[in-house]
Amino acid sequence: MNRNRLEAFSDGVLAIIITIMVLELRVPEEPTWTGLAQELPGFYSYLLSFVYVGIYWNNHHHMLHLAGKINGTILWANLHLLFWLSLFPFTTRWMDESGFPQVPVLVYGINLLLAAVAYYLLESALIRQQGRDGPLARATGRDWKGKVSPAIYLVGIGLSFVNPLLAVAAYTVVAAIWLIPDRRVERFLAAEADRKG
Amino acid sequence: MNRNRLEAFSDGVLAIIITIMVLELRVPEEPTWTGLAQELPGFYSYLLSFVYVGIYWNNHHHMLHLAGKINGTILWANLHLLFWLSLFPFTTRWMDESGFPQVPVLVYGINLLLAAVAYYLLESALIRQQGRDGPLARATGRDWKGKVSPAIYLVGIGLSFVNPLLAVAAYTVVAAIWLIPDRRVERFLAAEADRKG
Amino acid sequence: MNRNRLEAFSDGVLAIIITIMVLELRVPEEPTWTGLAQELPGFYSYLLSFVYVGIYWNNHHHMLHLAGKINGTILWANLHLLFWLSLFPFTTRWMDESGFPQVPVLVYGINLLLAAVAYYLLESALIRQQGRDGPLARATGRDWKGKVSPAIYLVGIGLSFVNPLLAVAAYTVVAAIWLIPDRRVERFLAAEADRKG
Amino acid sequence: MNRNRLEAFSDGVLAIIITIMVLELRVPEEPTWTGLAQELPGFYSYLLSFVYVGIYWNNHHHMLHLAGKINGTILWANLHLLFWLSLFPFTTRWMDESGFPQVPVLVYGINLLLAAVAYYLLESALIRQQGRDGPLARATGRDWKGKVSPAIYLVGIGLSFVNPLLAVAAYTVVAAIWLIPDRRVERFLAAEADRKG
Repeated sequence: MNRNRLEAFSDGVLAIIITIMVLELRVPEEPTWTGLAQELPGFYSYLLSFVYVGIYWNNHHHMLHLAGKINGTILWANLHLLFWLSLFPFTTRWMDESGFPQVPVLVYGINLLLAAVAYYLLESALIRQQGRDGPLARATGRDWKGKVSPAIYLVGIGLSFVNPLLAVAAYTVVAAIWLIPDRRVERFLAAEADRKG
Repeated sequence: MNRNRLEAFSDGVLAIIITIMVLELRVPEEPTWTGLAQELPGFYSYLLSFVYVGIYWNNHHHMLHLAGKINGTILWANLHLLFWLSLFPFTTRWMDESGFPQVPVLVYGINLLLAAVAYYLLESALIRQQGRDGPLARATGRDWKGKVSPAIYLVGIGLSFVNPLLAVAAYTVVAAIWLIPDRRVERFLAAEADRKG
Repeated sequence: MNRNRLEAFSDGVLAIIITIMVLELRVPEEPTWTGLAQELPGFYSYLLSFVYVGIYWNNHHHMLHLAGKINGTILWANLHLLFWLSLFPFTTRWMDESGFPQVPVLVYGINLLLAAVAYYLLESALIRQQGRDGPLARATGRDWKGKVSPAIYLVGIGLSFVNPLLAVAAYTVVAAIWLIPDRRVERFLAAEADRKG
Repeated sequence: MNRNRLEAFSDGVLAIIITIMVLELRVPEEPTWTGLAQELPGFYSYLLSFVYVGIYWNNHHHMLHLAGKINGTILWANLHLLFWLSLFPFTTRWMDESGFPQVPVLVYGINLLLAAVAYYLLESALIRQQGRDGPLARATGRDWKGKVSPAIYLVGIGLSFVNPLLAVAAYTVVAAIWLIPDRRVERFLAAEADRKG
């Protein structure tokens, strides 16, 4: 199995997910600023999901950059991740169309959480294939973002019982943390180059 | 005709099919767990079709990996396969929106069957181009999955007259069989390497 | 300008056009064979447009295979072709949803005709860039299909005044002519190889 | 970070944006020329947005052709640009469905303006990474189109208070200016080749 084709297929799916979400954006009922303002929550949920897919694309790329051979397990772990990401347009639309009540906001958080779990499983499959001393294991050694994110999702899911908007705030915090691109791999490669140099 | 461009086009179409199906998922009518539970059948049919497209992508890749030159017949056999796969979003939506009655469930099974037939025709065209001793003919020699699947589809189509859910169970069995990725090609390549080594 | 990126972008657009048309297919109103039969015209127009996009993808690929450097004119001639092809989902949907009356069937024919004209303009731009002795000019010298197709489209457009179904028959004839893949380029390459050999 | 993968992802997103806009085109209410004529404004806004996405694809390609290493800032500047471009289907649809009143036409202009700003920020990030003497800084030195376009967008936004159609005319002028493909990069490469030759 060729790594390039796995990357190309994943890129294709991620590009489609990030783009078709715009089809879910409702056109304002009246052609006024008030009409547009009423769609701001929908716009915000679109932005949030857009950023999340961008983050996954970015991290996915860095991770596969260090991957070795692709076996069947890795292939299905990757499709498993794409499955949960493919539900973003659905959970985003539900949260928005229903007006951000508790259950849809909680379900959106669960979707984020399951995507994070799927990402972790893919990472584990890639590391297992390389062995504990492989480049990926060493590069992701101190993955504090990957550990902190699910915790904040859980906090957000809990907060949705208090006030759904607090949950959305929690999901926003995670996106903000990741917006700073993952420099671990870059740093690792630089360190490797130093060691050899 | 370049094999790479055929692969890239097929990958593009498969990536779009697997992703746009989410646009067909209905948002629950009420923002509650009960509302979400009512959409579980739709969610299940989405999952089933997602897995099927994933399986086709995986097998298609393995098969083309052993392909030789691309001629006009192969090109149209490939588009023929993509045509039946492109109907998955349609038959999935019909089955789901109508609530899994007999005819739509049966038609979904026919769609699965025709995709399998189209896949077989593409495989045959590829083998014919290479000759009976070509790598693809030898690699797919004992293709029990490819022979068993249409039989189970037919059983499912028959069961749809008894109870449509039994048909869906049959379709699920085939997906489960294929979820274990096709190791034939990998095994063949390993055996070839052994023989030469 | 890199030819590969032009090809990749065109392939992407063509893959999306050919796939999103399925989103326009209406789900039958009732879950019965009668319900499905009522959608057969829609299904047929989907099949016809699917084949047309497949033909354009195939011919586009063969043509670009012989292309030289890409300049600004070629780039916009290519986008011009993609524009008319991108309207296929729209004209197909109109023809189908309205039940194949005269004007929509005629407009579909005009869409086919304009795509053919755009293809011809792109071919001309590619040939002009290479000069009259370039490989593309020699390979497409006796392009009877390219000359006959617009004529049949015009016949179809005329027949739409008599009976729209006759027009659809004419469009089907053109698709059938092209289904046999364009062997001119392949033949030319073989002849070149012979001459040098 | 690999430049090729950034290009491929951007191409994918742009190809999807340019194509899914056709899904927003409304089918005429009646199957007559009058019915089609009523959709001409929608058709025109589709054409305008199609040309704009084509222009961005073209310029984006030329710009990245001269880019050096991709860092985190460049990556997010690119996603920022894709975000505003991804809203084209939404603002186009609003403008069209509401019948070109003042606010939606103005918002469309703001969308064009923000995409131009995002493009400028991406260009700046690429130049900063190369240094002021880098190939991109020298190639885009006299970017009169890039400076004139935002000014005309602002004029259009202002004109929308007088008559929305004047605003649409202004947006059309910018598209016309850019339709002539950006020869700066080509000219620069030719000049470089001369100097070395």
